[in-house]
Amino acid sequence: MDATTTPPSNALTADDQHLIDGVLAGQRRALAKTITLIESTRDDHQVRAHRVLGRLLPHSGKAIRIGISGVPGAGKSTFIEALGVWLIDQGYKLAVLAVDPSSSVSGGSILGDKTRMEQLCMRHEAFIRPSPSAGSLGGVAEKTRESMLACEAAGYDVILVETVGVGQSETTVAGMVDMFVLVQLPNAGDDLQAIKKGIVEIADLVAINKSDIDPQMSAVARAQWKQALHMLRPTSPNWRPPVINVSALQKQGMGDFWKEIQNYCTAMKASGEFEDKRKKQALAWMWSMIESGLHYRFRNNPSVHSALPEVSRKVAAGEMTPGAAAHMLLDFVHES
Amino acid sequence: MDATTTPPSNALTADDQHLIDGVLAGQRRALAKTITLIESTRDDHQVRAHRVLGRLLPHSGKAIRIGISGVPGAGKSTFIEALGVWLIDQGYKLAVLAVDPSSSVSGGSILGDKTRMEQLCMRHEAFIRPSPSAGSLGGVAEKTRESMLACEAAGYDVILVETVGVGQSETTVAGMVDMFVLVQLPNAGDDLQAIKKGIVEIADLVAINKSDIDPQMSAVARAQWKQALHMLRPTSPNWRPPVINVSALQKQGMGDFWKEIQNYCTAMKASGEFEDKRKKQALAWMWSMIESGLHYRFRNNPSVHSALPEVSRKVAAGEMTPGAAAHMLLDFVHES
Repeated sequence: MDATTTPPSNALTADDQHLIDGVLAGQRRALAKTITLIESTRDDHQVRAHRVLGRLLPHSGKAIRIGISGVPGAGKSTFIEALGVWLIDQGYKLAVLAVDPSSSVSGGSILGDKTRMEQLCMRHEAFIRPSPSAGSLGGVAEKTRESMLACEAAGYDVILVETVGVGQSETTVAGMVDMFVLVQLPNAGDDLQAIKKGIVEIADLVAINKSDIDPQMSAVARAQWKQALHMLRPTSPNWRPPVINVSALQKQGMGDFWKEIQNYCTAMKASGEFEDKRKKQALAWMWSMIESGLHYRFRNNPSVHSALPEVSRKVAAGEMTPGAAAHMLLDFVHES
Repeated sequence: MDATTTPPSNALTADDQHLIDGVLAGQRRALAKTITLIESTRDDHQVRAHRVLGRLLPHSGKAIRIGISGVPGAGKSTFIEALGVWLIDQGYKLAVLAVDPSSSVSGGSILGDKTRMEQLCMRHEAFIRPSPSAGSLGGVAEKTRESMLACEAAGYDVILVETVGVGQSETTVAGMVDMFVLVQLPNAGDDLQAIKKGIVEIADLVAINKSDIDPQMSAVARAQWKQALHMLRPTSPNWRPPVINVSALQKQGMGDFWKEIQNYCTAMKASGEFEDKRKKQALAWMWSMIESGLHYRFRNNPSVHSALPEVSRKVAAGEMTPGAAAHMLLDFVHES
């Protein structure tokens, strides 16, 4: 690049300004284009995305950010659709994003099939975006988090982040939202699965879906969940995670659900935890990106790259201590 | 340093050779001195420690490495003493190490008070070393892991690594041993605490101690634990973690305990998992040390060091995205 003909990367181009104005005016096309920039793997797109996001940032942060998880089959998409339509009827504007690291393998899974949210897709008050399909969980989640900020700048006041009920994605999503919701089926034993995976620890609300099918079983599931949350969760002085019965198919319980969301926000804002959590999340995010940047650069250092296979072999074979190997490889980076 | 008068750091000095010979001859004094080098925070000591360890490494790896955890009061020390004396009577040589990150605050806690293991201390077949008291959990554990290799080179064929039942230390210790044992009290509800903290996931054996006091309660606790392990643990094709009743005070159940250890080793060695686990552990250890080395160097880069407070403030205040902040700070390191 020629420094005399290209502007410094931090100066806005006319295209940038156009995009920013469009997002701030709530134009869906400008928002979609911004998110495409954010998701791009091209270096020049990333530079532009950072530039645009920097200008959108002061206008973000006003939405409620809600993570929604649950095992496949729990009815997350149906629940999001029912809740979304209900919220729009209450006057809210809603963005639905997704974090699904498996979509980089399968080429798009959750939210990928927009026909699953037919009613919601037809409403102009809703903005629905499938999971970015490039990279690791951290990479996918980073892009979703930045897209969330863009949606907020575009005036969406409820952000739902859907995630699949597998692996580490729940913890990652919990690290970018104000409140984490678990959608469960009224099956005994589901609670143990969630306990096992450590999800109970991060659930701020449990919604037992499909409660219309067998009300008695749903009541039992609710009691079990309440007990599990009571016994296993570290008590917070300001919030005890409620368990509610809903039916997304019958559109039942949406008002109850939303009331709990608002109760939570009221309690957390009163205690100062709401703002505090967002600050901690932003810093944790920064550090996580620093760590992955350091790791990436380390692995791509030419000396490390060429020495790593043999050093790893020696460590695995017990011919070199992990400590000596780490020092040797770190010295390569230091010297270069 | 003047390269013409000092030997290259990898060449052995006469002192080094003396130390190595002493350790390989099973001399306790040489072993203790080597561990003191390993635990030292002085740079020259670390260089020497790596040099000595490199020569001891080919003689390590023949012991069974067992991690022992449990809540305070479960009787870990009494259990280790009873087991240790029993093992010595069977002809084994035993090293007892500890990982206790809290000892850097309190100035020594577990194994620090050697009088708690009076009988074991009097036996020359036992080598007991309290937790290193310097640094973070990772730092403390790193030194214990390297000390373990030195103990193996000195001919100790059973290594017990004790850890306190708090925080992340269990997972860290599980990453350096062949088998992880949980010592529990016969109290209902203890299992839930362990489930909550994710310890059940890493337990290869559960020993319910003090089973002599109330045999009926102990039988109930055993049944509960079996159920919890059955429901919560991912099934391994080659091992189902057993639950046994012991009494360290009455020296009951040591034979049962050791039989299960041997069953485990037999099963894991037959399937190849034993060696495979050690290889993976060594590589994971190397990477963990690389990550902390990169992190340390990053934080101590002068540009990062001076910019970090203001950048962190901006990120927390929502004036800068975590992504832009990470890129900016990473560029400092890249440029310097």
